[in-house]
Amino acid sequence: MRIAIDAMGGDHAPEQIVHGVLEAAAEWSDTQLLLVGDTAQIESFLSGKKPANLTIVHADDVIGPDDEPVKAVRRKKGASMVVAGQLVHDGEAEAMISAGNTGALMTTGLLVVGRINGIERPALAPMLPTMDDIGVLALDLGANMDAKPEHLLQYAIMGSIYRSKVHGLEQPRVGLLNVGTEAMKGNELTKAAFELMQSAPVHFIGNVEARDVLIRNCDVLVCDGFAGNIMLKAMEGTASALMREVRNALTSSWITKLAALTVRPKLQELRAKMDYKEHGAAPLLGVNGLVLKCHGSSDSKAVKNAIGRARTAVQNRLVESIATEFSRK
Amino acid sequence: MRIAIDAMGGDHAPEQIVHGVLEAAAEWSDTQLLLVGDTAQIESFLSGKKPANLTIVHADDVIGPDDEPVKAVRRKKGASMVVAGQLVHDGEAEAMISAGNTGALMTTGLLVVGRINGIERPALAPMLPTMDDIGVLALDLGANMDAKPEHLLQYAIMGSIYRSKVHGLEQPRVGLLNVGTEAMKGNELTKAAFELMQSAPVHFIGNVEARDVLIRNCDVLVCDGFAGNIMLKAMEGTASALMREVRNALTSSWITKLAALTVRPKLQELRAKMDYKEHGAAPLLGVNGLVLKCHGSSDSKAVKNAIGRARTAVQNRLVESIATEFSRK
Repeated sequence: MRIAIDAMGGDHAPEQIVHGVLEAAAEWSDTQLLLVGDTAQIESFLSGKKPANLTIVHADDVIGPDDEPVKAVRRKKGASMVVAGQLVHDGEAEAMISAGNTGALMTTGLLVVGRINGIERPALAPMLPTMDDIGVLALDLGANMDAKPEHLLQYAIMGSIYRSKVHGLEQPRVGLLNVGTEAMKGNELTKAAFELMQSAPVHFIGNVEARDVLIRNCDVLVCDGFAGNIMLKAMEGTASALMREVRNALTSSWITKLAALTVRPKLQELRAKMDYKEHGAAPLLGVNGLVLKCHGSSDSKAVKNAIGRARTAVQNRLVESIATEFSRK
Repeated sequence: MRIAIDAMGGDHAPEQIVHGVLEAAAEWSDTQLLLVGDTAQIESFLSGKKPANLTIVHADDVIGPDDEPVKAVRRKKGASMVVAGQLVHDGEAEAMISAGNTGALMTTGLLVVGRINGIERPALAPMLPTMDDIGVLALDLGANMDAKPEHLLQYAIMGSIYRSKVHGLEQPRVGLLNVGTEAMKGNELTKAAFELMQSAPVHFIGNVEARDVLIRNCDVLVCDGFAGNIMLKAMEGTASALMREVRNALTSSWITKLAALTVRPKLQELRAKMDYKEHGAAPLLGVNGLVLKCHGSSDSKAVKNAIGRARTAVQNRLVESIATEFSRK
């Protein structure tokens, strides 16, 4: 198995990326790791160690966080992210991972790696936090602001296959983000999608309200990119405002300050739980090869975890399973 | 000034409605209060006192919480809510207030009271909670799930006039609920609405993210009913899940239990703040008369407050101001 890693993307690139890849190389000797980026910079962080299962693929350009995605991917053919995508497209790697510019990575998936036949819109699918720490796969969160009912149907099928192949869930419960649980609730989009999803090859449990996501009443949450983003930002904003108020309440007297010392770890854990950025790598589903997006602030541990996630997906033939499902249509 | 009150709608009708109206009648002797509902039941709660500015308008039917809105309003011409709406339509009252079935009240506004000329879609506009307790008027939250850019523009204008006429704000800041603050962010709907709102007769401050609503970075938040509902439910769900966790953390040891006693009032205040249902009556803007929706659980105090709010709106010629603005087009 071969996994390409964009060495130059993310806030702590290339150092933390290289370290994460070294850790992964030591743990999984059956996996070929292709580190894509500036050879000199990469080598400076290898400090002379280069495991047998690590190959440097030189790329002399980089897509920055502020580059306009489509333009950057089209023009910078030699950028590390684009080269990694090209390796997947050419069948020289089964997966690619990047902590770089999210829009550019989605564009790389779409234009360089390419769509799976039958998929209209690839979707970005991060895990949202839940109170029990297990999480819900939500898609689409970022790739497309507008969606048609057929797109939501495709998200449902892809998300369900991902949870089953990569997380081992036997019958992932698929919910549709909506304003009420009754069948006829919603806007034109969700009403039509509800109809389609009832006869889809997934375990569709119906509409799910934004207020129930945190209690994990489904395993896959289907939404258009706009509604999903509104939900996520509302959760983040509420959590951060409330935690601030709780902290203030706990500094109001000596007794509460004393108590604050003992509950601080618990409150910090709660804050971390509500920070969806910390919840691992998100797949771009629907492209013809595995594309994983790591958060920009990823450290070596996050990079290593993403490589582990990619291994599981490749071993369990995630992309082939999605392709087979859609070739039947 | 004459205000019609649906005596039969809400969880605590008619008792709490009648008590609220009696309090209002005592406070505002210049205002004629028309209590619409079953005369015998209303009289049983008046206990012989009937102030000069209170009139009972008999209605022998009621729309229940589970009635299908459009059907109920069309068929139950003698229902208290419909009769109250008819009083406004006929010019026998300037305002109506109900704590009954929300969908039926919106239908009453649309079909019985009637739209203002030029308004395509009336919108329900509750105050959302903010951390500083002042709140943000958000619309549409409930009347229409789908919206066109022109509808969002009309919401912006109506919301701005409401905050200025009823809350006395000189130049209400109008924000558009979106997934980012930059001008070109969003879906097709918000991109087109952004364009329209830039040249609208309102103080448009641009896009507003869901995570910033609680810190009150605008006074009027414009959104379609679907996105607004997703945001609201996400806020509610996050607040309730987090407060539960904080409570658990505070019962983990004797010292935290002791501290919990001292911070309990503060935490309860925080919970109440996040419960948007407690934040007063919501106007249905765009209908040809003032229609106010009280929460179903309203007590006499909430009813009296709604009457006070209606008085201000009528005194400051809210409906006429909206009609004038739209007659110019």
